[in-house]
Amino acid sequence: MMNDYLLALDFGGTKLSAAVLPVSELQKETPTWLAHDRAYLRKGKDAQFEIKKMIKLGRKLLDGKRPLSVGVSFGGPVNYEKGLVLLSDHVPGWENTPLQAILTEEFAAPVRVDNDANVAALGEWRFGAGRGYDSLFYVTVSTGVGGGWVLNGRCWRGHEGMAGEIGHVVVEPNGPFCFCGKQGCVERLASGPYMAQDFLERGGEFISGPVTGEVIAGLASAGDALAWGILQRGGKALGLALGETANLLNPQAFILGGGVTKSGWLWWESVEKGAKLRAREQVHFEIIPAAFTDDAPLWGAVALVEDLKDEG
Amino acid sequence: MMNDYLLALDFGGTKLSAAVLPVSELQKETPTWLAHDRAYLRKGKDAQFEIKKMIKLGRKLLDGKRPLSVGVSFGGPVNYEKGLVLLSDHVPGWENTPLQAILTEEFAAPVRVDNDANVAALGEWRFGAGRGYDSLFYVTVSTGVGGGWVLNGRCWRGHEGMAGEIGHVVVEPNGPFCFCGKQGCVERLASGPYMAQDFLERGGEFISGPVTGEVIAGLASAGDALAWGILQRGGKALGLALGETANLLNPQAFILGGGVTKSGWLWWESVEKGAKLRAREQVHFEIIPAAFTDDAPLWGAVALVEDLKDEG
Repeated sequence: MMNDYLLALDFGGTKLSAAVLPVSELQKETPTWLAHDRAYLRKGKDAQFEIKKMIKLGRKLLDGKRPLSVGVSFGGPVNYEKGLVLLSDHVPGWENTPLQAILTEEFAAPVRVDNDANVAALGEWRFGAGRGYDSLFYVTVSTGVGGGWVLNGRCWRGHEGMAGEIGHVVVEPNGPFCFCGKQGCVERLASGPYMAQDFLERGGEFISGPVTGEVIAGLASAGDALAWGILQRGGKALGLALGETANLLNPQAFILGGGVTKSGWLWWESVEKGAKLRAREQVHFEIIPAAFTDDAPLWGAVALVEDLKDEG
Repeated sequence: MMNDYLLALDFGGTKLSAAVLPVSELQKETPTWLAHDRAYLRKGKDAQFEIKKMIKLGRKLLDGKRPLSVGVSFGGPVNYEKGLVLLSDHVPGWENTPLQAILTEEFAAPVRVDNDANVAALGEWRFGAGRGYDSLFYVTVSTGVGGGWVLNGRCWRGHEGMAGEIGHVVVEPNGPFCFCGKQGCVERLASGPYMAQDFLERGGEFISGPVTGEVIAGLASAGDALAWGILQRGGKALGLALGETANLLNPQAFILGGGVTKSGWLWWESVEKGAKLRAREQVHFEIIPAAFTDDAPLWGAVALVEDLKDEG
């Protein structure tokens, strides 16, 4: 049929992305977007502005076609069952926004909205590094650390949508304080901004421009002992939490994405070591890099609604 | 029909239990066994002996009826998919025993075999304290500490059947060594035998008879400061691990069973406190006592096979 298209939307922290996929592409080994575009966000805008801008972007890409369904990734907490965005840490005005209802009316098609970690997990499982696995935990290590579950080939969100909070698992009970109030959380030790903070506080040499996780990784690769120590500690902290998670849930694979995972083999080795230290000998798993960088939420948004086409 | 009966079998560490349930009881609020019996095991027996004895017990209870299906709980690691008992820590000769195949031939009915933690989780979910919950984690705190998951109303075993290993989650990285090789595991701090060991090693007063978890709890209630400290540390250790588990999976409830959970409100309060310390504020859950003591595996064995009746 002429109108067999899915619309994928991604409300990111700094940009909006949208894409249209012909349903016929779903059967292919490497599906290809019919249309794809993004819009960068300036500061000072609110939820209303973002929603209008996204609708405009979607309409442009659809070019008059009516979508069979609309999948939406949102960079913040979402009540999936009710289709509500709960809030955004980046943009004001998102509190309890009925995004599913708004977009259903706008595009006259069934809509599903979920948070970016769950959606990225689905995207990697359906189209990326997680293809062929029945159970996986996707973890993004970037400004924050968060995760999403796919169990039995379905997203596991938890009873109030809070599952996947690996960022605040404690691995150093006497470690440094995290904004969450606890000490030695994974996010406190392994996220880009906290690694940068540790570097500067411990007298790391001044570098022009902002100190990010990638800068720490670059310095570590270049032989900076302080940077290397911080990177190793962060990788190990994440690994320890993955090992505990493996003991508790026994998934087949952990898929790691986000900026900090671009830190090179030193970092990956620390993660592997930490995981092996904590997982029981009989508990097996793989730790693999995510296939997608920017597009994981859009592909996940497709996976979120590809089975809805019969409802529509 | 006259022959609508389920057979439930439980291979425990020190005894064999069996029961027969008429299918008509499944619809009732409080189902009642048609027949129920157990046999205590003397030391020095092997797997062959146990299997023969269990078959005899089952046949006696069935009294000539052919069961529609047979559910089996085993106190040790099981490969559920293949129907194999992997080993027993208590009884020799169980290595890679095809228990499902043996019992299928014996009772001419479909059989399912799973480990006692998974089966008890199912039993509490279907007939006990977990009724009405969609997701729960059952934890037994006794000689060891282990758990079983029910997610979306189904048992989650993990990709190689290893899920639920909460006993070896590390909560005190610099704590005492556990037999598993790690330091400060939940089992090292919270299980009955290790609490008893800590009590004796730290100069706990001599008492006639073996020192068990219940003895520690009794002494704690009676005001023994050493016993109380050990019990509190164990309860808190379990609670911390439950809090982390809540962050990762967001189940509705934790159901706690096993001898150590009979330690009174001091212990339960420590568990609650530990869990609240680690769980994020937005992550909600209940911690509730198991409904069954001895019979959880038998009721779980029923839950394991009640849907098989159509296959048979």
